[in-house]
Amino acid sequence: MGVIDKGGREINIVKDADLLILATPVNTILKIAERVSKIIKKDCIVIDVGSTKHEIVSRLDELFSHYLGTHPLAGSQKSGVAYARADIFKDSVCILTPTSRTKGEVVKKIRKLWEGVGSKVILVPTRKHDKIVSFVSHLPHLLAFGLMDLIPRDYLKFAASGLKDTTRIASSEPHLWVDIFITNRLELLKALGRFNKRLSKIEEFLHQKNKRGLYRFLTNAKQKRDTIV
Amino acid sequence: MGVIDKGGREINIVKDADLLILATPVNTILKIAERVSKIIKKDCIVIDVGSTKHEIVSRLDELFSHYLGTHPLAGSQKSGVAYARADIFKDSVCILTPTSRTKGEVVKKIRKLWEGVGSKVILVPTRKHDKIVSFVSHLPHLLAFGLMDLIPRDYLKFAASGLKDTTRIASSEPHLWVDIFITNRLELLKALGRFNKRLSKIEEFLHQKNKRGLYRFLTNAKQKRDTIV
Repeated sequence: MGVIDKGGREINIVKDADLLILATPVNTILKIAERVSKIIKKDCIVIDVGSTKHEIVSRLDELFSHYLGTHPLAGSQKSGVAYARADIFKDSVCILTPTSRTKGEVVKKIRKLWEGVGSKVILVPTRKHDKIVSFVSHLPHLLAFGLMDLIPRDYLKFAASGLKDTTRIASSEPHLWVDIFITNRLELLKALGRFNKRLSKIEEFLHQKNKRGLYRFLTNAKQKRDTIV
Repeated sequence: MGVIDKGGREINIVKDADLLILATPVNTILKIAERVSKIIKKDCIVIDVGSTKHEIVSRLDELFSHYLGTHPLAGSQKSGVAYARADIFKDSVCILTPTSRTKGEVVKKIRKLWEGVGSKVILVPTRKHDKIVSFVSHLPHLLAFGLMDLIPRDYLKFAASGLKDTTRIASSEPHLWVDIFITNRLELLKALGRFNKRLSKIEEFLHQKNKRGLYRFLTNAKQKRDTIV
């Protein structure tokens, strides 16, 4: 396994690696990949753990002959080694995004790797991955950031557990999320567009004092939320 | 203290009460208040714990001579006696909304009551209360419900802790929240209008691939979120 410091100075230590895991912010993955591709062994397996996949996988599939895109859906708003946890992947989902170029043996080995740390593995094509995460991760982050950006500072002392939970992820690292939002902006814009349409409908219900419409909307939301453990 | 069952059949047990706490959904408070106002002692102190205040307080101030509106900012998405917790108010904020008609002795006693169960008491006028909670509670609930309503069912298996926390409150009781949204719809619509403007700005940043604009927006959100414990 290879380790690369921020400046890439130790990059040569990857030259004998059998497995290389690229685990940096999305845009940095692309830059580092270019550099290590000239150094590593031909049969070194390379994976990344980036939050967006289509752009990364398209490029890394060209650079490496034994590559697989992965996205472990785990972590928190905190970053840095100080917040490392041995059980972080337990009961989480890890998405693998094989393409027509991906070797079967690589999928097999990497599936075993993720399952070994406790993840449930699901295979999803790259574009579908980016669409799914725009709904289940990127849009929720955008709304949490948006809420915190909006709420006047002198109202924050009235924050109860509802607001705290809803906006916990707004404490995430801005530079990480700028990268993610920009890389997946097309899917995110589509999800946001659909969300805006729902909001308009709810706005209409409120203007009309339409209790029945609101009740149906809230009940559908609750039923779906109750299915998530 | 008085206890009223759902059908109001036991309403006579409140006739000798010294303190009456109305703790039902918002619209039910108004209905019950009318009925108990004809029965209780003249000097019985009445409070309610409704999530919206202006409409309720205006009406209950007319009905009762010893009334004070209160709003404990505590609770969870779960409802029913089964989820009762002795420490639910510990370290929470309770808003009191006295008016020009409220007696000083009532404020004093009720402040003591809420502080006694662990709340930090803050006095806020009714309209200001409704504005504050539209930002720190009602809009976050609306967005959580909206997110769950939007996300396709077959994407739910990809839900990680971010989505779970962001939408925990979408498991709240729909009938409670229809009442709250309708009663506070004017403030909620204003907050929603301002939120929509922010979303449009973010949409613009995404279209333009404006990393600097996004970074400023995310950083402002994170800084504010980091001030909430």
